Amino acid sequence: MKYPTAIYLDHAASSTLRESASKAMVEAWQKGPGNPASTHHAGRAQRRILEDARDKVASLLGAFPDEVVFTSGATEANNLALLGHAAAAGPNSPLIGSPVEHKSVLQVLCELAKAGHPLTLVSPNPEGIVPDLTCALPTGANPGTVTLQLANQETGALQPVGKLGKQLASTHPAWRLHTDATQAVGKIRVDFHSLFVHTLSLSGHKWGGPIGAGALLVRRGWPLRALCHGGEQQDGRRPGTESSMLAAALAVALSEAVADLDAFQTRASAFRQTILNTLKQNAVPYEINGSPEGLPHILNLSFGGIRADLLVMALDLEQVAISAGSACTSGSILPSSVLTSMGLSKDRILSSIRISLGHDTTPEIVDEALVRLIRVVRRLGGGGLS
Amino acid sequence: MKYPTAIYLDHAASSTLRESASKAMVEAWQKGPGNPASTHHAGRAQRRILEDARDKVASLLGAFPDEVVFTSGATEANNLALLGHAAAAGPNSPLIGSPVEHKSVLQVLCELAKAGHPLTLVSPNPEGIVPDLTCALPTGANPGTVTLQLANQETGALQPVGKLGKQLASTHPAWRLHTDATQAVGKIRVDFHSLFVHTLSLSGHKWGGPIGAGALLVRRGWPLRALCHGGEQQDGRRPGTESSMLAAALAVALSEAVADLDAFQTRASAFRQTILNTLKQNAVPYEINGSPEGLPHILNLSFGGIRADLLVMALDLEQVAISAGSACTSGSILPSSVLTSMGLSKDRILSSIRISLGHDTTPEIVDEALVRLIRVVRRLGGGGLS
Repeated sequence: MKYPTAIYLDHAASSTLRESASKAMVEAWQKGPGNPASTHHAGRAQRRILEDARDKVASLLGAFPDEVVFTSGATEANNLALLGHAAAAGPNSPLIGSPVEHKSVLQVLCELAKAGHPLTLVSPNPEGIVPDLTCALPTGANPGTVTLQLANQETGALQPVGKLGKQLASTHPAWRLHTDATQAVGKIRVDFHSLFVHTLSLSGHKWGGPIGAGALLVRRGWPLRALCHGGEQQDGRRPGTESSMLAAALAVALSEAVADLDAFQTRASAFRQTILNTLKQNAVPYEINGSPEGLPHILNLSFGGIRADLLVMALDLEQVAISAGSACTSGSILPSSVLTSMGLSKDRILSSIRISLGHDTTPEIVDEALVRLIRVVRRLGGGGLS
Repeated sequence: MKYPTAIYLDHAASSTLRESASKAMVEAWQKGPGNPASTHHAGRAQRRILEDARDKVASLLGAFPDEVVFTSGATEANNLALLGHAAAAGPNSPLIGSPVEHKSVLQVLCELAKAGHPLTLVSPNPEGIVPDLTCALPTGANPGTVTLQLANQETGALQPVGKLGKQLASTHPAWRLHTDATQAVGKIRVDFHSLFVHTLSLSGHKWGGPIGAGALLVRRGWPLRALCHGGEQQDGRRPGTESSMLAAALAVALSEAVADLDAFQTRASAFRQTILNTLKQNAVPYEINGSPEGLPHILNLSFGGIRADLLVMALDLEQVAISAGSACTSGSILPSSVLTSMGLSKDRILSSIRISLGHDTTPEIVDEALVRLIRVVRRLGGGGLS
């Protein structure tokens, strides 16, 4: 067999650890023990690894090193940003977001709304794009917080964060803007300062770093309240012993992903075209959910009424890993809030699956996945929704 | 040379990663990509690793698997516990603790006090032990939260948590008891249920697991508010993608530490005796800070007025890594709050250093460390405090 038996096309949920990242972890632990907060040689050796990683992340994303706060992932980073901004802006400061956001943003907004912050959620257009959040800016209100993701986790739709940032900076300079860049970093060029955002969250395992390693970029001069209290690590913004091992792996994986950006885009676009062409050639009816101009490695499809959970299960039996909606909700049969807010029909939403490609996806993997996908769709075809 | 050039005796700050732990990480990433929240085979493979780790941690510490919440470390675990208990007990619920606690407990207590919770801090006896916190229980007040560490991070003093737990359970069953067991787990036998605590925090890197891996044990029936909002991971108590790699490494390191408990205690006691005897034989005057009956692998000493920061630096030049106070404060020259609360003189506090032994400490390491320590103390001797 030329293709691997198990096929993994769920990279938006979690991608393959890059060899460079695992190597960086091994190198970090081979340096021996040491707490980066300790002043002796062993502590300094770990601190050097940590600060090198911070410098690398900063330079790859157009930030200053002191703007990088390492976290355990994007969930923590999104919480740190949004709870921090809301606290800084004041008890009843307004919040503006969109239902296309990831749960770790949406749930925070809902909690803040329960605590008294007026919340406006602006629906996306049918392609999943939120063209303008400024329409929701209250006139004459206290400054508040706007949040807009860089790219969507279910459809790959790209959001106009830079445009929004520039506009806010000129018309509402006291407002704070957060972007969840989890699905965009390592996939498209991201320049923190030119986005005019105050915070940006990212997660290493979406582009070949380890799970458990993420970061929040925090604009200089816009301090945030920490989520936890304790030591003075990371200027008190994220107390707790820092893992130089995880930071180093995140940084080196990011560096590789950024170096491969254009080539990855080209590969992913070609794979996407192959998938769509092959489906057409085999007369398999499908609909694409979301903008055709989004991230090419995320493809959200509905197969004429075949229930997504059944399709995902049937493909799993064929050793193909794909997802129905984002991983956090994949265990549930609740319709995706992203697709619902796009105004899609219930049938189309309940039959939507996400195929997401990764840095190690090859033409052979895509070809074999298509053979199995078409076989399974044909077998389930015409079943309709129960 | 029979001894290693660089000598590490700061294991209470962070210990050497065990080979079994690094092997577990390699095994986890060799399983391939997968988000443990995904329902397909790749996700399930990671979930299996994660749940095996949870089962192992639970059985090693006398807890149920659903009582184990993996976190990024003890700082997060302590915050989750104390902020959660205070929220559950109500806005003005009382708090009782002690100044011997780690910063990640003390700072949380102070933040809660600022938010209106009445806080009582009970000082330890001169040996660093807090014999009775129940004296601070207000009569007739709303139920609140008591926190008492299992072992002290600077002196190794063991606190009577089990006794306190039993007493609270019988006289104040509505009160909540948290214990920070960071320095005790993997060093002494810890049985969650028989301590009668509601939460217990731990950190993998204190006994050979990786930095970035910790856990909070949460008693069944005593739900806690999560620190972050997002996905439903770990029953919503700790949203965010779970790292099976870190959990597996933490679990296997704990399993090895627990299997080696008695042997480690014996080795550490012998090393401690060697250190004290050798100092005596070489007529190096010292004082022991804290209970002589605490954890044998933590030795807190003052050398007649030699400033700790100078001693730590001079030893660092001799390639010996030890600490002045706990790592989080080692960069500062503020006197330790632990030793201050024990009523020690300022001279003794400012000259106190911590030597902490680890699972890979050998007689050769201790002997060579002593040669260098005695040389440095003699060189600095009689300097007095400036």
